[in-house]
Amino acid sequence: MKQTGTLYLLPNTISDGGWQNSIPDGVRDQALPIRHFIVENIRTARRYLRKIGFNTDFNEVQFFELNKHTLEQDIPQFLQALKANLDMAIISESGLPCVADPGNIVVALAQQQNIRVVPLVGPSSILMSLMASGFNGQNFAFVGYLPIDNGQKLKALKQLERKIFSENQTQIFIEAPYRNQKLFEFIVQHSQSNVKMCIAKEINGPKEWIKTKTIGEWKKQKADIQKYNTIFLLYK
Amino acid sequence: MKQTGTLYLLPNTISDGGWQNSIPDGVRDQALPIRHFIVENIRTARRYLRKIGFNTDFNEVQFFELNKHTLEQDIPQFLQALKANLDMAIISESGLPCVADPGNIVVALAQQQNIRVVPLVGPSSILMSLMASGFNGQNFAFVGYLPIDNGQKLKALKQLERKIFSENQTQIFIEAPYRNQKLFEFIVQHSQSNVKMCIAKEINGPKEWIKTKTIGEWKKQKADIQKYNTIFLLYK
Repeated sequence: MKQTGTLYLLPNTISDGGWQNSIPDGVRDQALPIRHFIVENIRTARRYLRKIGFNTDFNEVQFFELNKHTLEQDIPQFLQALKANLDMAIISESGLPCVADPGNIVVALAQQQNIRVVPLVGPSSILMSLMASGFNGQNFAFVGYLPIDNGQKLKALKQLERKIFSENQTQIFIEAPYRNQKLFEFIVQHSQSNVKMCIAKEINGPKEWIKTKTIGEWKKQKADIQKYNTIFLLYK
Repeated sequence: MKQTGTLYLLPNTISDGGWQNSIPDGVRDQALPIRHFIVENIRTARRYLRKIGFNTDFNEVQFFELNKHTLEQDIPQFLQALKANLDMAIISESGLPCVADPGNIVVALAQQQNIRVVPLVGPSSILMSLMASGFNGQNFAFVGYLPIDNGQKLKALKQLERKIFSENQTQIFIEAPYRNQKLFEFIVQHSQSNVKMCIAKEINGPKEWIKTKTIGEWKKQKADIQKYNTIFLLYK
């Protein structure tokens, strides 16, 4: 069988603090020799690489952009360097590649083609919020965004509530930051008052704030989360 | 309000490789000044602390053990140092504290008592396997162990299959390492042949091996996972 390169999955920081708080030295060292990257945004990916000490001239580096503008038929070509026995890395805009971002399309192709895929360690706001919530970490689900339409949002929220009780499963979700406050108020209005909600804001950054309260208690204390990166968690 | 200490959640390594591949320098630096720890096993926690450069005499360090032998009524006392305005840390035996381990009981108490909880970055075999699977990372669930009884195991497996298709949700689970091979064969025998399974073995270690195939393909290729740390993932 022909020798292929390795596809590394390189995490990004999730806050403005120093990268040394979230990216292990050994992970940085594995990233530095790579010359072929798949990224969501070239400009911010370059800035991240410079921050962690990647000093190679960017003229000697190949970047492919994978985001909502990428045509599906272009994606298979991204893997050419791997087939030429060169290593590549996927970098996320924030946190872990392929978790709550589209990188998994490339990984699925790599797996189909028997290319070695190596995930590297980095920060996950989803799991860090789960750790700090006090909620069940032996059974949990991340469901992305709730529907925008209020009727559908209510239906989704009620389904999450059911799973908390019937499956003993922590439910984790996110919202576009400018809609955070509205979602917070929607949940407080429509959830059972004995359900617990954890609000995890600006994880790993200087404004980090993580609080768990019952819906009844949240009714009396507002959370200041508008336009901040926030994770919502529900449990009993 | 009385000033309290901070409860840090300190990840552990998940493989025998150097800790520099999985614990950021900045996380290590936050752990070194701490003198009060909640751990699953004192002996292995001490060994881990020495490995990352914790040089303080252990006679000056307080350890509480939190595991299946801990009496529930003893747990509230673990938080005394925090109330005396001293920082504490929970250390897991492997990976992230409070994810697939009992640390969340202490965090829930800390949240109730308005103690600041700070999650630190480290390796998660659950999310690293998800990243490398190529499966949906925008909607996923970790459900812990499947039931041991074969009838109940089959029922659980069929429920996971349904969620893959009806909720578009990746399903992640684990097994006691000495039962891995049996579970692999059970899944291959009972799942639809078009379902995809990712087997992620010894993540972050020298024997790391992560493969995604359809159940139909797994029928033709066995996975050598008996007694290895393994994560199982199912998706369409």
